[in-house]
Amino acid sequence: MNLHKYLNEKKNIIEDALKKIIYSNTDTPKIYESMNYSLFAGGKRLRPIITIMACELFDGNINEVIPFACCLELIHTYSLIHDDLPAMDNDDFRRGKLTNHKIFGDGFAILAGDALLNKSYEILFSLIHNSDNKEYKKAAFKISEASGVLGMIGGQALDLFYENKEIPIDKLIEMHDKKTGALIKASLETGAIIAKADEKDIKLMGDFGHLIGRAFQIMDDVLDEKGTLKKLGKNIGRDSINKKATYVKHFGLEQSEKNAFDLIFEAKKLIRVYGNKSKLLADLAEYIVKRDS
Amino acid sequence: MNLHKYLNEKKNIIEDALKKIIYSNTDTPKIYESMNYSLFAGGKRLRPIITIMACELFDGNINEVIPFACCLELIHTYSLIHDDLPAMDNDDFRRGKLTNHKIFGDGFAILAGDALLNKSYEILFSLIHNSDNKEYKKAAFKISEASGVLGMIGGQALDLFYENKEIPIDKLIEMHDKKTGALIKASLETGAIIAKADEKDIKLMGDFGHLIGRAFQIMDDVLDEKGTLKKLGKNIGRDSINKKATYVKHFGLEQSEKNAFDLIFEAKKLIRVYGNKSKLLADLAEYIVKRDS
Repeated sequence: MNLHKYLNEKKNIIEDALKKIIYSNTDTPKIYESMNYSLFAGGKRLRPIITIMACELFDGNINEVIPFACCLELIHTYSLIHDDLPAMDNDDFRRGKLTNHKIFGDGFAILAGDALLNKSYEILFSLIHNSDNKEYKKAAFKISEASGVLGMIGGQALDLFYENKEIPIDKLIEMHDKKTGALIKASLETGAIIAKADEKDIKLMGDFGHLIGRAFQIMDDVLDEKGTLKKLGKNIGRDSINKKATYVKHFGLEQSEKNAFDLIFEAKKLIRVYGNKSKLLADLAEYIVKRDS
Repeated sequence: MNLHKYLNEKKNIIEDALKKIIYSNTDTPKIYESMNYSLFAGGKRLRPIITIMACELFDGNINEVIPFACCLELIHTYSLIHDDLPAMDNDDFRRGKLTNHKIFGDGFAILAGDALLNKSYEILFSLIHNSDNKEYKKAAFKISEASGVLGMIGGQALDLFYENKEIPIDKLIEMHDKKTGALIKASLETGAIIAKADEKDIKLMGDFGHLIGRAFQIMDDVLDEKGTLKKLGKNIGRDSINKKATYVKHFGLEQSEKNAFDLIFEAKKLIRVYGNKSKLLADLAEYIVKRDS
């Protein structure tokens, strides 16, 4: 199957599964609308899709992995809502749409983020509660760790701390690895874990995730520098306005792109061991550096 | 043992356990300070203490329940940090100290809240991951549900929605039940669950928690109306400034206090079935309506 078709197919599956998670509840107004607004604001569903990909690579059951994949998307969505707040990146647009707080106000945006994070863990606890599957416990723990202060939140904290400050390049890379890389890594590990892959395969998926996560974040910086409002759907150059140190500012546009391509080359080399079975993952890695939005 | 001595003793145990959770990490500046600042800002540790109480009532192992009790305190602390933000209640003081965002800024306050919530679930997943104890899974699921959009976050959403609006009294009570009651209820249930109490005892603890949670929130409104800055350690009458509908505004001071005492009377009646063993819980219920801060 070609990548484009695969992404579309799996995106639809994820959308359907996500729609069943946050039902509207008229008893508690606005919060559900706020949660749903961002959850269905046109995300690429990259994290849940790579979770499924990793699961399929090890012949796992896709129906079994989908709730975990959805949880990763809920966590990703909450992080975007909070990142966009005036107290953080202060972004008015994301994917061409107004950000959550521009529609619902800062208070509901904070709560919707909290609620999506909490919902993700409610789902994971419920999956664990209703099963004796050891893999479920392991995957849930990995996801929570990657999302926490040693992972994604820690990355966001570094980002905030170095705003308007000179950030050393090693800290910038650490920030990227935590802010973006950790959850992408956890997505791939989760897919492999639920498929009951061997420890060594889970580790390999994690390493692959680490590399493509790094490349993904570099390309985000590159696209932010090169992009247009139309293509990316958010205010371009916002990082420059916020005086944020970016990878591109440090290495320059050309070297940054080269570094991203090198990382993807390394990532693809890692999964060659799975032969033709890993073609989709390799294509996805390629897509990360060749995308224009 | 008298209540005062018990509260002090258990508070020290909780403080010691909490101190081991969030270590400082110089790699990621400010976020750990921000988390610790609020975690050690002088809370009464009511939720973890009642968790221990419920566990002891059913002869559970206190060392086993302490990590769960700590998780409840982490969740409570995050909710206070987010509630105090300018986008929510906009409080400058809590327990006589500057609120988190007044010290660390709104961005770090949001992240510290996120990090505490996430940390709580990391601990729960790790406890579950390292044990085959079914009770752990059950308690963790209860805690997550009580903290979510059907519980605490839902209550905060109602609070925010009805700011500057006339709130019907049934919605006000629903708001209290979710915002404060849900986590207190979950604390008591958690203690009973970890002690391997019967289903009927877990339910009774939940009902007891529901009643004292409701009384607790009414007394908060009463104290807010009556209190002084010195005693409560936060700006008094902030709810009035925010034009918030409060229980006291609806029922008047005298009737509100009476209702709180009636709820505590009901709560104490419920636990009479445990005889003298439940004396501390009964004293605690009493303390909730007789405290002056």
